[in-house]
Amino acid sequence: MADVSNGPLRVAVAGASGYAGGEVLRLLLGHPAYRSGRLEIGALTAGSNAGTTLGELQPHLLPLADRVLGPTTVEELAGHDVVFLGLPHGQSAAIAKTLPESTIIIDCGADFRLTDASAWEKYYGTAHAGSWPYGLPELPGGRERLRGATRIAVPGCYPTVSSLALAPAIAAGIIEPRVNVVAVSGTSGAGRKLDVGLLGSEVMGSLRAYGIAGAHRHTPEIAQNLKAAGSGADVSVAFTPVLAPLPRGILATCTAPTTVDAETARAVYEKAYADEPFVHLLPEGVLPQTGSVLGSNAVTLQVTVDTDAGLLVVIGAIDNLTKGTAGAAVQSMNLALGIDETAGLSTVGVAP
Amino acid sequence: MADVSNGPLRVAVAGASGYAGGEVLRLLLGHPAYRSGRLEIGALTAGSNAGTTLGELQPHLLPLADRVLGPTTVEELAGHDVVFLGLPHGQSAAIAKTLPESTIIIDCGADFRLTDASAWEKYYGTAHAGSWPYGLPELPGGRERLRGATRIAVPGCYPTVSSLALAPAIAAGIIEPRVNVVAVSGTSGAGRKLDVGLLGSEVMGSLRAYGIAGAHRHTPEIAQNLKAAGSGADVSVAFTPVLAPLPRGILATCTAPTTVDAETARAVYEKAYADEPFVHLLPEGVLPQTGSVLGSNAVTLQVTVDTDAGLLVVIGAIDNLTKGTAGAAVQSMNLALGIDETAGLSTVGVAP
Amino acid sequence: MADVSNGPLRVAVAGASGYAGGEVLRLLLGHPAYRSGRLEIGALTAGSNAGTTLGELQPHLLPLADRVLGPTTVEELAGHDVVFLGLPHGQSAAIAKTLPESTIIIDCGADFRLTDASAWEKYYGTAHAGSWPYGLPELPGGRERLRGATRIAVPGCYPTVSSLALAPAIAAGIIEPRVNVVAVSGTSGAGRKLDVGLLGSEVMGSLRAYGIAGAHRHTPEIAQNLKAAGSGADVSVAFTPVLAPLPRGILATCTAPTTVDAETARAVYEKAYADEPFVHLLPEGVLPQTGSVLGSNAVTLQVTVDTDAGLLVVIGAIDNLTKGTAGAAVQSMNLALGIDETAGLSTVGVAP
Amino acid sequence: MADVSNGPLRVAVAGASGYAGGEVLRLLLGHPAYRSGRLEIGALTAGSNAGTTLGELQPHLLPLADRVLGPTTVEELAGHDVVFLGLPHGQSAAIAKTLPESTIIIDCGADFRLTDASAWEKYYGTAHAGSWPYGLPELPGGRERLRGATRIAVPGCYPTVSSLALAPAIAAGIIEPRVNVVAVSGTSGAGRKLDVGLLGSEVMGSLRAYGIAGAHRHTPEIAQNLKAAGSGADVSVAFTPVLAPLPRGILATCTAPTTVDAETARAVYEKAYADEPFVHLLPEGVLPQTGSVLGSNAVTLQVTVDTDAGLLVVIGAIDNLTKGTAGAAVQSMNLALGIDETAGLSTVGVAP
Repeated sequence: MADVSNGPLRVAVAGASGYAGGEVLRLLLGHPAYRSGRLEIGALTAGSNAGTTLGELQPHLLPLADRVLGPTTVEELAGHDVVFLGLPHGQSAAIAKTLPESTIIIDCGADFRLTDASAWEKYYGTAHAGSWPYGLPELPGGRERLRGATRIAVPGCYPTVSSLALAPAIAAGIIEPRVNVVAVSGTSGAGRKLDVGLLGSEVMGSLRAYGIAGAHRHTPEIAQNLKAAGSGADVSVAFTPVLAPLPRGILATCTAPTTVDAETARAVYEKAYADEPFVHLLPEGVLPQTGSVLGSNAVTLQVTVDTDAGLLVVIGAIDNLTKGTAGAAVQSMNLALGIDETAGLSTVGVAP
Repeated sequence: MADVSNGPLRVAVAGASGYAGGEVLRLLLGHPAYRSGRLEIGALTAGSNAGTTLGELQPHLLPLADRVLGPTTVEELAGHDVVFLGLPHGQSAAIAKTLPESTIIIDCGADFRLTDASAWEKYYGTAHAGSWPYGLPELPGGRERLRGATRIAVPGCYPTVSSLALAPAIAAGIIEPRVNVVAVSGTSGAGRKLDVGLLGSEVMGSLRAYGIAGAHRHTPEIAQNLKAAGSGADVSVAFTPVLAPLPRGILATCTAPTTVDAETARAVYEKAYADEPFVHLLPEGVLPQTGSVLGSNAVTLQVTVDTDAGLLVVIGAIDNLTKGTAGAAVQSMNLALGIDETAGLSTVGVAP
Repeated sequence: MADVSNGPLRVAVAGASGYAGGEVLRLLLGHPAYRSGRLEIGALTAGSNAGTTLGELQPHLLPLADRVLGPTTVEELAGHDVVFLGLPHGQSAAIAKTLPESTIIIDCGADFRLTDASAWEKYYGTAHAGSWPYGLPELPGGRERLRGATRIAVPGCYPTVSSLALAPAIAAGIIEPRVNVVAVSGTSGAGRKLDVGLLGSEVMGSLRAYGIAGAHRHTPEIAQNLKAAGSGADVSVAFTPVLAPLPRGILATCTAPTTVDAETARAVYEKAYADEPFVHLLPEGVLPQTGSVLGSNAVTLQVTVDTDAGLLVVIGAIDNLTKGTAGAAVQSMNLALGIDETAGLSTVGVAP
Repeated sequence: MADVSNGPLRVAVAGASGYAGGEVLRLLLGHPAYRSGRLEIGALTAGSNAGTTLGELQPHLLPLADRVLGPTTVEELAGHDVVFLGLPHGQSAAIAKTLPESTIIIDCGADFRLTDASAWEKYYGTAHAGSWPYGLPELPGGRERLRGATRIAVPGCYPTVSSLALAPAIAAGIIEPRVNVVAVSGTSGAGRKLDVGLLGSEVMGSLRAYGIAGAHRHTPEIAQNLKAAGSGADVSVAFTPVLAPLPRGILATCTAPTTVDAETARAVYEKAYADEPFVHLLPEGVLPQTGSVLGSNAVTLQVTVDTDAGLLVVIGAIDNLTKGTAGAAVQSMNLALGIDETAGLSTVGVAP
C-alpha cells in the first residue's frame, strides 16, 4: 500500500484526453481524498493532444480547465503514487515496466486482463504481456486480490455487466455453462475515435450490431470470469454487442439453460449480492434501465426464469464509463490504498 | 378482389391519429395509384381525436392537413373498397362484422393474428375473435394466402423481423427448434400512448428491457410463424424486447443451436430470399442497421454461425412502422387487389 | 437561520416524484451535510403518486428506493427545518401559509418569482400571491437577499441563464435595453407531464419553437431581472424558446444593440463574474455547450460583439434541472443556512 | 434545355459518398423520370472512397448497393446530361470548366453562390470563381432564372430557410433591414466529416453554438438574398447557428423590427406563398417542427408580431438535406429540364 505519511497522494492520469481518462478525473474531482487535500491530481498526459489544455478537450472538467497536457512519457508519470492508464491497447506494458513496483498502476486498457496467452493472441494478435489482478471486486475472491495490489487491470465494460449478471448462477450451479449475452451499448464505449460510423449523424436514429458470432474481444474475458466463478469448467459464451444512440450505458440481456424456478434463481442472486454496495438486485418485476445509473457506479440487475423456454434470464444495466471503466478503476484504487472502497463513488444516477 | 371498373378505389383509415394510421397514409400519399387518381383517400377516423384536423395530429402529412377526422363508426367506414384499421386491440372484430364481405379490411392490430385460441386468451386475456390471412408474404405460402384476400391481419413488428430472420433456418432444418430473440426497438412501436415511461425525457439517454421471459405478446406470434415455416413441430421462443432512444427501427439478434457451418447457413438464406423484393441478405461481413431502412419497406439480414458456441446468429433490421406495420399493410393491399406487390413501397431509406 | 444545535437539520421535499424534486434529492444525497449526518432527508411527498415507493418513480435515487411517498399535506411537511417545493404552479402559497415563519421554504415553482402583480396576472391568470427573495445569488445584490432568508423563490430555468448572460451588460450600460433571447432547451424543462408532444417518439429527431412572441411565462421574469440589474429602466425582452431532443440543458443566444467593441464587452463580463464560483466566462473563442454542464451547477458564458450587426452576442449554457432549478435551490438553501454556498454543488459535468 | 429525344437523360453524381450526394441519389431513385426509364443514374464518383461500392458507404440506397464509385474526374463525368456536384468547397470550378456548356451542372457546394467577390474572399479566403443562377425558385424572380439554366448554384441550408422566412417581409417593406437569425440544426449539415466534435458521443445530449457573431459563411449569403428580395438596399444580418442532437432538420427563429401588426404580417406571407408548392404558411398558432419535414421538400413557416418588443417573428423549418440541399438541387434540375418542378419531391415527411 502507498505510504501516505509524507504528504498527499499524487495521482497521474495518462490518456487524460480520452473518455476513460476524463471519467477517472471526473470521479477524482469528487473524491473525498481530493476534496480534503489528501490526494493531488498530478501529471495529465496525452498522445497527439499533448500541449493543449484540458479545457479544450474535456470542457466538463472546469476546475482543471487550465491544466496543460504533457506527453505520455516515463518522465511525466514518474513520482506519482497512483497512475491511471487510459491508453490504446498495447501501450501499457512499456509504461508499467519503467515505473517503480510500489507505484499503483491501474490500467483501463485490455493489456493485462486475460490470463490465457493463447486467448489474448487469438483476439488481439500481439504477444501476451501477462495478467494483473482484475478490478472487479464483486466477483468471487475479487476483493481480496485487489487489497494492496500495485498492478490492476480494469475490466472491459461488457464483461463487467455480463459477468456480474451471470457469475452467481454459474457459482451456484443453477445453469448449464452455455450463456448467451446480447448487450446494447452507448457510443462512448468505442472511445473518442475518429470513425465515420461513430459520427452523430450516423449513430442517431440507428441501431446496429457489430463484432457478432464471437468476434468481439470481450468474449474471452467474459468466459474467463465465468469459468473462475464456477468450478473451473469452461463456459461457452455467445456474445452480441449492439450499438445504440446514447452516449453512455450498457443494457445486457443474459440467458442460459436452467431447470430451476424463478424463486430459486432470485434467492441465489439475493444471497450473492446482499452485502455489495454497488450491485443492486431490483425488486421483483422492476427492470433495470441505463438512464438510472448514468454517472453512477451502480449495477442494477433483475433475474427471472423463462419457464417455457427453460432459460434463466438476467438483465443488467451499468454506465459503461463509470462502473464499466473509471468507477471500477477508482474502486480498485480505493481497495489498493486500503481506504473506504466506496469513496468518491455513488449509486445515485443523473436522471432524467 | 375489389371491383375497380366503377371509378377509383376508395380507401379509409380508421385510427388515422395514431402512428400506424399515419404511416399508412404516408405510404398511400406516395402510392402510384393515388398519384394517378385511381385510388382515393376517403374517410379518416379517430376515437377521442375525432373532430380535429389531421394537420394538428399528423403535421407531416401536409397534403391532408385540412381533413377533419370523423368518429370510428360503421357509417364513416361504409362505402369504401379498402379499410385499414389502426385501432387498439379488441376493437377490430366489431367493425369487421358490419362491413361487407367484399370490403378489403386490413387490420394493423393484433386481433386476428393468432390461430390458436388458447394462445390468444393466455396473452390477451379476452375471447379469441378468430384469425385472418397473415400479411407477411415472404413466409412460406404467405403470398398465396394474400392474393385476393378480403380480410388481412398485419403482423406485429417484432414477429415480422424475427420470423423472417429465422424461418429459412427452420424450414431448412438447420437449427434446433429453440430460438432466442433479443430485439431492440425504437419507441414508436409502443404507439402514441400517454405513458410516463415513453416521455422523451425518460427515453433519451436510456435503454431498458420490458416484457421479458415470455411475457411479451409477440412471443406466441413468433412461435406460430416458425412452427408453420417448419414441419409443424413446436418451436420454443425466448424473446426479450429492449427499448432504445430512437423513434423508429428494430434490430433483432436471433440465435438457435446449429451444427452447420456459416457457408451452409448463408446458402440457405440466399436461396430463400433470392427473389424477394424487400428482404435483402447483405454481403458477407456487412451488418444490418436500422438507420438504413428508415421509412423503407426493406428487411436487411445477415447470417453467420458462432462455431465456438454452436449457434446460428441472424441479425435483422426493419423500420417497425413501415415493413413492421404500415408497409406490410400496403404490401398486403397490393396483393389483395392484384396489383404490383411493390407499388408505393421502397427499399430506399432516409439516411442519415 | 435554522437552529442546528438540536440535532440534524430535517429537510422535506414536496413533489418528490417530479423532475425538480428528484434533482433536489440527487443533490442532497451528495451534500456533505447529508453525508456527515448533519442533514436528514425527511418527508417526501407527492400528489397522485403518494403511496408508491421512490424506487418506482425515481429509480436513479437508489439509496432512497424504499422510501414511500406521503401526500403533500401540512401534516407531512410539518416539523422540518427546510422544505423544498416542487409543485404545480399555484399550490405553494397554501402550503407556505401553514408552515412556521422559521421554516426555510424553497419554492421551485413560479408562484413567488414576480414582484409585479399585473405581470403575474397577465401571464399566469390567477391572483398574485406575492414575491419572495429570488434565488439567483449571482445577480447584483442577490446573495445578500438570500442570507438567512426563510422564503425563497427559485428562478425559472430560462431566466437563470438569460439573466446571467445579460445582466452585466445592462448593469454596465453597454447595451440598449432591448434584448433578444432565443433559448434551446431539453425536454425535462417541461416537467414530467403526460403530453403527446413530449413523447419520445415526437421529440427525438425534431426541433420546435413554442410560446413565441412574448407568450412564454418566463418573459416577464427575465425583464424583471434585467430591470433590477440596471438603473431600474424597463428592458424590452423578446424571447423564443425552442425544444430540442435531449433530456437536459439550455443553450441561450442573447443579443442586444451595442456600440462597444468585443474587448470592452469581455472586460465587463470578466469583472462581473471574476469571483463567482459557478459562473464561468470561457476563454476567447471557446463556446459553451450544454453537454459540459450536465448535472453541474455551472453556467458557462461566452461574450463577443457582432460589429457588422452592431449587436452584443452572449451565449450561455446551463443544466436546466441543476443550476436552472434544483442546484439554485440547494445553493439558496446553503446561503439561507449560512453554510458554504457551494456545498453539495459542483462545476464538474458528466460527459460525454 | 437538355435534349431528351435521343434516349434517356444521363445523370451523374460527383461526391456520391457524402450526405448531399447520397440525398440527391435518394431523391433520384424516387423520381418519376427514373422510375419510367427516362432518366438513368450514370457515373457515381468520390474522392478517397473511389473504388468502393455504394453499398458500403450509403447502405440505405439498396437498389444501387452494387455500384462501384469512380474517381471524380472529367472522364468519369463526361457524357452526362446532368451532373450534380457534392464536393468540398473550391473543387467545382475546375470540374465545371471541362464539361460542355450544354451539360446541366448543379453544384451543391458554395463556390458559385455569392455574387460579390469581396464577400466571397472575406468568408472563404480564396479567389472568387463567379456566380451561377441561384437554386431557390421561391425567391422573387428565382424560378425564371432557373428555367433552362445549365449552371446552378444550390443554396446553403441555413440561407434557404432564413431567406424564405424573411424575404416576403423585406419585399413588402414591413420590417427594418436589420434581421436576427438564430437557427438550430441537426448534425448532417456539417457533412460526413471526421471531427471529434461531430462524434455521436459528443453530440448527443449537448447543444452548442458555433460560428457566432457573423463568423459563419452563410451570413453573406442570407444578406445577398434579402438585399435582392427588397429594393436593393443592404440588409444587416446577425446570424447564430446552433448544433443540436438530431441528424436532420433546421429550425430558424428570425426576427426584425416592425411596426405592423400580426394580421398585416400574416397577410403578406399568405400572399407571397399562396401558389408555392413547397412553402407552407401554417395555420395561426401552429408552429413549425423539423420532425414534420423529415425527408420532405417542404418549408413550414409561422409568422407573428411580438408587439411588446416591436419585432416580427418568423419561425421556419426545413430538412437541411432535402429542401436545404438535395431537394433544391432536384427542384432546380426539374426547372432546368422544363419538366414538372415538383417531380420526385414531396411535402410528406417521415414521422414520427
